[in-house]
Amino acid sequence: HLISLAAAALALALVTPAIAQQQGPSKAEQMIKYRQAGFGWLAYNIGPIGAMAKGTIPFDAKVVERNAATMAAIAPRLLEGFPEGSGSGARTEARPEIWTDMADFRAKMGDLERATADLAVASRSGDMKVIGPALGKVGGACKSCHDKFRKKD
Amino acid sequence: HLISLAAAALALALVTPAIAQQQGPSKAEQMIKYRQAGFGWLAYNIGPIGAMAKGTIPFDAKVVERNAATMAAIAPRLLEGFPEGSGSGARTEARPEIWTDMADFRAKMGDLERATADLAVASRSGDMKVIGPALGKVGGACKSCHDKFRKKD
Repeated sequence: HLISLAAAALALALVTPAIAQQQGPSKAEQMIKYRQAGFGWLAYNIGPIGAMAKGTIPFDAKVVERNAATMAAIAPRLLEGFPEGSGSGARTEARPEIWTDMADFRAKMGDLERATADLAVASRSGDMKVIGPALGKVGGACKSCHDKFRKKD
Repeated sequence: HLISLAAAALALALVTPAIAQQQGPSKAEQMIKYRQAGFGWLAYNIGPIGAMAKGTIPFDAKVVERNAATMAAIAPRLLEGFPEGSGSGARTEARPEIWTDMADFRAKMGDLERATADLAVASRSGDMKVIGPALGKVGGACKSCHDKFRKKD
């Protein structure tokens, strides 16, 4: 047991991100990077599904299922990337309304979580007629939240 | 059907990352950012599990299970972040050996994938005596790959 704890401690030391070792970035900056990384993965994963829906790349059921599963795993973990005080500290498109209207932000994040879970289920159909509407709902959840809570370019 | 495709196309347009719209970063830079985002999420998620194993924060079975599940979802998606030609183009700790010895890199990524899957299973035990060794194996997979394929500071 002690050995396994020591192994775990060693494991932690080995993988602790450089970000922490440099004792540099603030907690706010770390959280901004964390959530941006998650949104980046969402975008990376939805991109090919959208392109397949549009017909610009060939339909590949395995890629849709794989990407949708990743999105469904990431979406529920985004809300924790917006703790109080993380509205500044690095370049961010987060609007202050996130923290002044957290109940609505939380609800919209819940919509995204459900939409990505539904897309993951739909993806298993292997049928773009089922996947398309589920994809549309994910896009709708993105847009609804961006409109209110993301800074315009 | 046409409406659902249109909705999907709209969804895609809405969520297409700013990164693509600016027609700025190279494909290599995009892949470097993608894989770094994934590793960042791994580190973010393993951190608390390691701290619980060390006893520096209280054991919370739900957090362990949640974080381990996220790690198991991300690990299998990292290899695609290392396409040929993505060894430079942005700040990266990736060593050229990744591409000159891809078979071994791929094998080590497979070790990580299996270790995170095993940790996700172990996490459901709610027992640190089961979780600790599984965590140690994840750390071992990280270290084994870092030793050979990541640049030293």
